[in-house]
Amino acid sequence: MNFPVIGWVLAWALKIEGFLMLIPCLIACIYQDRQGLIYLVLALIAIAVGQLLSFRRPKNMEIYQKEGYVAVGLTWVLISAYGALPFVLTGEIPFYIDALFETASGFTTTGSSILTDVEALCHTSLFWRSFTHWVGGMGVLVFMLMLIPSSGGSHMNLMKAESPGYEVTKFVPRVKNNARTLYRIYLAMTVITIAALLISGMNWFDSFCISFGAAGTGGFGVLNSSCADYTPVQQWIITVAMIAFGVNFSFYYLCLIRHPKEAFRMSEVRTYIAIIVASALLIAANLTAQMPGVYKGAEETLRAAFFQVGTIITTTGYATTNFDLWPSFSKFILFLLMICGACAGSTGGGIKVSRVLIVLKSLKCELYTLIHPRAVQKVRMDGTAISEKSLRSAYIFLISYFLVFGLSILIISLQGFDFETNVSAVAATLNNIGPGFAGVGPTSNFSAYSWWAKLVMIFDMWAGRLELLPILILFYPRTWKRHG
Amino acid sequence: MNFPVIGWVLAWALKIEGFLMLIPCLIACIYQDRQGLIYLVLALIAIAVGQLLSFRRPKNMEIYQKEGYVAVGLTWVLISAYGALPFVLTGEIPFYIDALFETASGFTTTGSSILTDVEALCHTSLFWRSFTHWVGGMGVLVFMLMLIPSSGGSHMNLMKAESPGYEVTKFVPRVKNNARTLYRIYLAMTVITIAALLISGMNWFDSFCISFGAAGTGGFGVLNSSCADYTPVQQWIITVAMIAFGVNFSFYYLCLIRHPKEAFRMSEVRTYIAIIVASALLIAANLTAQMPGVYKGAEETLRAAFFQVGTIITTTGYATTNFDLWPSFSKFILFLLMICGACAGSTGGGIKVSRVLIVLKSLKCELYTLIHPRAVQKVRMDGTAISEKSLRSAYIFLISYFLVFGLSILIISLQGFDFETNVSAVAATLNNIGPGFAGVGPTSNFSAYSWWAKLVMIFDMWAGRLELLPILILFYPRTWKRHG
Repeated sequence: MNFPVIGWVLAWALKIEGFLMLIPCLIACIYQDRQGLIYLVLALIAIAVGQLLSFRRPKNMEIYQKEGYVAVGLTWVLISAYGALPFVLTGEIPFYIDALFETASGFTTTGSSILTDVEALCHTSLFWRSFTHWVGGMGVLVFMLMLIPSSGGSHMNLMKAESPGYEVTKFVPRVKNNARTLYRIYLAMTVITIAALLISGMNWFDSFCISFGAAGTGGFGVLNSSCADYTPVQQWIITVAMIAFGVNFSFYYLCLIRHPKEAFRMSEVRTYIAIIVASALLIAANLTAQMPGVYKGAEETLRAAFFQVGTIITTTGYATTNFDLWPSFSKFILFLLMICGACAGSTGGGIKVSRVLIVLKSLKCELYTLIHPRAVQKVRMDGTAISEKSLRSAYIFLISYFLVFGLSILIISLQGFDFETNVSAVAATLNNIGPGFAGVGPTSNFSAYSWWAKLVMIFDMWAGRLELLPILILFYPRTWKRHG
Repeated sequence: MNFPVIGWVLAWALKIEGFLMLIPCLIACIYQDRQGLIYLVLALIAIAVGQLLSFRRPKNMEIYQKEGYVAVGLTWVLISAYGALPFVLTGEIPFYIDALFETASGFTTTGSSILTDVEALCHTSLFWRSFTHWVGGMGVLVFMLMLIPSSGGSHMNLMKAESPGYEVTKFVPRVKNNARTLYRIYLAMTVITIAALLISGMNWFDSFCISFGAAGTGGFGVLNSSCADYTPVQQWIITVAMIAFGVNFSFYYLCLIRHPKEAFRMSEVRTYIAIIVASALLIAANLTAQMPGVYKGAEETLRAAFFQVGTIITTTGYATTNFDLWPSFSKFILFLLMICGACAGSTGGGIKVSRVLIVLKSLKCELYTLIHPRAVQKVRMDGTAISEKSLRSAYIFLISYFLVFGLSILIISLQGFDFETNVSAVAATLNNIGPGFAGVGPTSNFSAYSWWAKLVMIFDMWAGRLELLPILILFYPRTWKRHG
């Protein structure tokens, strides 16, 4: 294990976090929040320490897969731990574990909160909280890769470990260009969302924060009512934005380089859209049948259905209605969408539509082989056969996923909350969604859990955002052996 | 697809069921139940029709894997459908879907019931109900293989499809001997259980029925209180019996041929015992801490913990206490045990300890390969490397398992019951356990579900008992093509 290069990456990450913390300082100037001073001091310390430690490049700059995973895992622990400090020092979230929960929830684009009164935060902290979503959505190290001089294939291993989905090499061959292209698309789409919300009449602070949350598929709101108080038009804009950020970014890249036909042929994107439409229509029908009169007219019912389906499948976590009161069937559709998640290569979480597709295809392939034992059948996606290695890593991912799922619920159930609360709390954090059902439903929050249960869920948020292995590897003893 | 041979197997299965139905007729004589006449008539019809249709052996007796799966899947549908008739005709369960639920629950050794008052059944029907557990535990076709002239490797495919676990070829090379050995061990252990219960002072009818349920890991009781009214000694005997029938039968075979050392080195059996002891101790500690005074003294607490852990991990489903009232932590341990299940090659259900082991080992192997990319590491069980094919089939099994799990809950949640009831109802039927939590807890039953929800759960019971593929294949259109 090449520890010096890992340390160097961590120092860079700290430095970047310092620079990013300067942005809330601007907000502090506008709103004359005196808390801004704390952000400024912390930003300067991070920049200074980061600069000092990253000044000398290590001799051996090679980053293999293992170093990539460890570096990414530790980076996310570091930026969450450091990013939590302002909340503690401003006194807005006095207990450190709570602040860590909130910050990890921000960077991992989860959106689960321990705050009972969001509106009590100063504008600076509200902005920082939403801004962590935007940074976390695309990844901190992907951002770093844009800046630092590339050293060929080495950096690919950082990018691979941080980007959601089973394949990042799809479209742009060079990592640096790749990172830039991703961030450009991301930035452009965020700007469009902000503009749309401004035009619809939302104030600029809300427009920025809500757009950050939608872009990173995070879900921290700035009002206690989440998105319920926005106008119907604004809710539809947010719905479309969330769904758009849950699409595989390869789709936009293909559109950009004028291959729209190829883009629209991507089976993952088609399946993703089909799942959204089918789920929303089923829920709308279920709501009309079992909760007549609660949503007035077809538009309001469809809006509630599409907003909630969009927010859950993209793992954003905004809400316009208390979906915990919905009938069991609608709630269980949402539960399945929580686990399914958005497309690979998007900012969304969950196990990803592409993995669901691969799994369904391999099951079909297995049945086919059973009936036609002599036929050679391969699992294919968009025309190309999926290698045995990719298949195996998809299986291993799913297995680790369900293991982490089960063990997390087991530990937090020690606190005695009910089955639905515990299961959905872990589902909401492991899939980076935000709200769950019952005790952690959209009108409640995670403050009732004790500090150790929160630690488990912080672990789940990291594990979910980084797709397990970069976090699991930190707990594997062999990782820390010198000659490992 | 060789349809004639499948028809021939089905005819044989019907004939065997007819002969088995003669046994409750004996009980009817003893208790002078006039319902016995219905059993007699149905038995004779089954024997006659079965004999007629199986009289001429088909020319082509070859049974490949696909024919094995289809034949086994259809056999279980047939024997459940026919075995349900007595309940309807005696008027004890007038609605056919309910009777089918009860019989499928019996043969698949689930033990879920739709009856609110078990004690209202006549002795004949009570006996038939428990007896289906004993028959289903080892398998109907395995029984058939003991009787009919073996035609070499062909029959292995029937045995493979009907026996739980990922490997049946372990110990005896010839199928016929294999089936005989299995049934001999099974019979001997059942006799020992009956004898132990008789000595402890239980009446002979209960001793037989409870032993059938423990042997098949079924769980139908003969009292409304399940096993709560039996003496402590009797409860301990049942606990030991259930756990013993959840052990891989290879263990007993190895002991029989005087290789006890090898037997005790089987990692699946060791893990299984370790899980039981650890779970029971954790639950006992949790009960002592959070429900003080409910169980008096250490013996009663440990007895409750071990009985319930034994009944759930072996997927039997008896109960001595309403574990639905236990604290969340204990309940979630039971939930995990429901999914884990007993050993492969036992009569228990669930995903099996060996699969859990394989999965954990392959995860560890993956992490090792990540750290040591050049090392060649294979997943090993008891010293031998597991082939890629076995690994893949374990993965496919788990994936199909979770798919069936999710889809079943989705459909039954249309009825509007709560999350915990729906999740545990599917967990209880898919893993062939019996009771779940909340609305289907040990003091409740499945009668509140509508007929279509019951059909879904009947499907789940079959799918769970036959480990998915033999049932899934029946719903795969290509199966039914002539030249498939």
